Amino acid sequence: MDSKEFRHEGYRLIDWIADYLDHAENHHVLSQVQPGDIDARIPASAPLQGQHMSDILDDFERDILPGVTHWNHPRFFAYFPANNSGPSILGELLSAGLGVNAMLWQTSPAATELEQRMMIWLAELIGLPAGFHGVIQDTASTATLCALLCAREKTTAFAFNARGPEALSPDGPLRIYCSTEAHSSVVKGARIAGFGDRNIVQVKTDGNRALDPADLQARIDADRQAGLTPCCIVATVGTTSTTAIDPLPAIGPIARTEELWLHVDAALAGSAAILPEKRWLLEGVEHADSLVFNPHKWLFVNFDCSAFYVRDPAHLERVMAIDPAYLQTDRDNQVTNFRDWGIQLGRRFRALKLWFVLRSYGAENLRAMLAEHIALAAEFKSWVEDDPDWELLAPVPLNTVCFRLHPVGFQGDDDELNSLNKDLMNRVNRAGRIYLTHTVLDGRYTLRMSIGQTGTRRRHVEEAWEELREKARQQS
Amino acid sequence: MDSKEFRHEGYRLIDWIADYLDHAENHHVLSQVQPGDIDARIPASAPLQGQHMSDILDDFERDILPGVTHWNHPRFFAYFPANNSGPSILGELLSAGLGVNAMLWQTSPAATELEQRMMIWLAELIGLPAGFHGVIQDTASTATLCALLCAREKTTAFAFNARGPEALSPDGPLRIYCSTEAHSSVVKGARIAGFGDRNIVQVKTDGNRALDPADLQARIDADRQAGLTPCCIVATVGTTSTTAIDPLPAIGPIARTEELWLHVDAALAGSAAILPEKRWLLEGVEHADSLVFNPHKWLFVNFDCSAFYVRDPAHLERVMAIDPAYLQTDRDNQVTNFRDWGIQLGRRFRALKLWFVLRSYGAENLRAMLAEHIALAAEFKSWVEDDPDWELLAPVPLNTVCFRLHPVGFQGDDDELNSLNKDLMNRVNRAGRIYLTHTVLDGRYTLRMSIGQTGTRRRHVEEAWEELREKARQQS
Repeated sequence: MDSKEFRHEGYRLIDWIADYLDHAENHHVLSQVQPGDIDARIPASAPLQGQHMSDILDDFERDILPGVTHWNHPRFFAYFPANNSGPSILGELLSAGLGVNAMLWQTSPAATELEQRMMIWLAELIGLPAGFHGVIQDTASTATLCALLCAREKTTAFAFNARGPEALSPDGPLRIYCSTEAHSSVVKGARIAGFGDRNIVQVKTDGNRALDPADLQARIDADRQAGLTPCCIVATVGTTSTTAIDPLPAIGPIARTEELWLHVDAALAGSAAILPEKRWLLEGVEHADSLVFNPHKWLFVNFDCSAFYVRDPAHLERVMAIDPAYLQTDRDNQVTNFRDWGIQLGRRFRALKLWFVLRSYGAENLRAMLAEHIALAAEFKSWVEDDPDWELLAPVPLNTVCFRLHPVGFQGDDDELNSLNKDLMNRVNRAGRIYLTHTVLDGRYTLRMSIGQTGTRRRHVEEAWEELREKARQQS
Repeated sequence: MDSKEFRHEGYRLIDWIADYLDHAENHHVLSQVQPGDIDARIPASAPLQGQHMSDILDDFERDILPGVTHWNHPRFFAYFPANNSGPSILGELLSAGLGVNAMLWQTSPAATELEQRMMIWLAELIGLPAGFHGVIQDTASTATLCALLCAREKTTAFAFNARGPEALSPDGPLRIYCSTEAHSSVVKGARIAGFGDRNIVQVKTDGNRALDPADLQARIDADRQAGLTPCCIVATVGTTSTTAIDPLPAIGPIARTEELWLHVDAALAGSAAILPEKRWLLEGVEHADSLVFNPHKWLFVNFDCSAFYVRDPAHLERVMAIDPAYLQTDRDNQVTNFRDWGIQLGRRFRALKLWFVLRSYGAENLRAMLAEHIALAAEFKSWVEDDPDWELLAPVPLNTVCFRLHPVGFQGDDDELNSLNKDLMNRVNRAGRIYLTHTVLDGRYTLRMSIGQTGTRRRHVEEAWEELREKARQQS
């Protein structure tokens, strides 16, 4: 591909994306293909000869696009927001064009320094207290793994890194505490870091599904008495199922007194702390050793871009740093080499898209958009509450509404009610007008409306409510 | 930013990237800024009001670009190739525009199915035997970590995952074997996965810096006699320092007999196996349990895109799978959910750029370009060998030449010779015409010419040789 073809097909793609974002709602939000449908359209082997990019883009539209689930769709209410934006897409484009590997300061000083500054901008926006140092990770899963590794090494005075499991004897296994509502990435991270599933202590939650600090303290006490070694607390600000908020003001002092690493998983909800009226979400965060939140969820930055903060970066570096001759530079004593702040050696120039987004929107527009999502969720909640055939299943502090169909006069048992809701969700999703996903709360199959895509307006939320009620009527 | 502004600034960026790639050599290849220079140009805080994208792009050119080290530069000879291409950049753009999270099949069936097919295309191109299943990871560091986790769980019958370090007693620590030339990511992965630094057994190398199978066998035997638990062998095909090739045909049978996981790190060199004359690189790979190579290094795909193959994906899934209610879909028994094949839950749609690159170039063009890089390295090697003031320090099986200045009649000791070469490299890099990095071989400070950027032609390699000799003359 010469530069003339690059320009030509590049313009075409820019136009295609502009049209796509303007008209995403013309697509079925959830792809309607069956397993194997897309693979059947792709040749078995790579071509020997080069092909024209225009033909490849034609094939994309014909063969690949039907298999795309449209995360940009304004009626995408599944999982969590993954809101995208023009400036972010252009930032990713520029980053790809530069092709920088930001593993070391020297391998692109601007990538490191812009990343550091963007982490400061974000920390100010969400009201983090002074003393936290930020780095961009790919996902909250990776950031939480990094936090667990820091906790492991802090508790063992860096002996686990050096000696592996032997470092523990005669101390008992290292224990991690999180609520029963914590994200699956805590378990995954604990497995990866060698804690073992059985050393994840699931702490009870209160009526709002937030971690119960008294139970946390009791479990730490019991572990110490049993000769086990408390190591890390993971508090969740905005759980995946219901956006429950663990009480940092109560958890923090326990972590300090017990000398445990406190990691705050605010993957979704952290972005909401840019709103003055939501600053309370992070009250108590001054006790934390680390925190993660995802601008790629709810701050209009395309996936991936996860903001990870640690209080003591020397700690992180000591856990992660490997210093072979071939990676050493004359600058190493003067600069930050982010390769030592995470799992991967290679790193993309992700700060560009964050810079583009924060400048293009500005803080006030970002606040207005998040406030609108939260207001829409509150409105949807009120519709559920006001309709006797529907039932609200959790508080709605942010953008996510947990609810179910529970028709007046429904005669079935709990299992039948679960089946009714599962069947409703599958029929709604297959119809392709809206897309929403579920969780299970105390055995109840629960529908989730997660509101936060860039194009979502009030009418889309209204359409979702209409669609749900319409499909529910067809069912009865 | 409305769609009109997106189009306008998108075209501008496409044009900028086209010009940049055409004229990358007009830049200093290594950024000349000092620590803090770029940060000083960025406002301390995020703006309150939105700003025009055109102003932001102006600021990029003025304030950020001077801090970019140009990995696309045709005289970038540092570290390893990270060759980029027009089709790859467009693929990344489209992926950003779609904003898909490919964590589950359902969250974009095309992302999973195209990824599976691209892994098959690549496996065929490099001549992998049947029976390997591929997945795209971000980096080889992550892929090697995944391999170490699989090894850990295979050896402990999945007990480490479940019980942590307790799973080991009464067995001794798990041991990993790799050569003294293996990449730093093996140590990092071993730390993360809880093996501990001391359980990485460094195996001797032969005169070509390839792993010595007799020493490998001896160390395994000694460990078993000492009550330790051999677990994993990491063989390197193309080491970072010198592109040495560990002998898989000899290592593989040891792994099979000893029932150890064999992971092949072919991060750089795997791409060269698309050349029929380099197929020997992967001879013996049929004994491997896993392999990684990086299309983002030497196959014209922009960073990140690492191809990870495992023989038994059920193994990988059993190690990684966490299955909370909120991630379950009705398709889970029919499809592959790649979230269970790696560390991260969220995943970008990376297969698009791979599809664009493999189709746009075609296999024959890719082969021709890699063959040219290898031929240029051979030619550079001959220049070094033919000049009495320079010394070749390692064999050149691929694209990397290890050498040093050693002037006829040089009177200094080894340390002075090292200083001479370090000083030469720093002066060359500061001049900004070429960029190369070093390693240390048997205590000798070694310059490395790594040839493989997309725009690199014979004249750029000639210019590098001229620049090195010129700067060496100024020194003496």
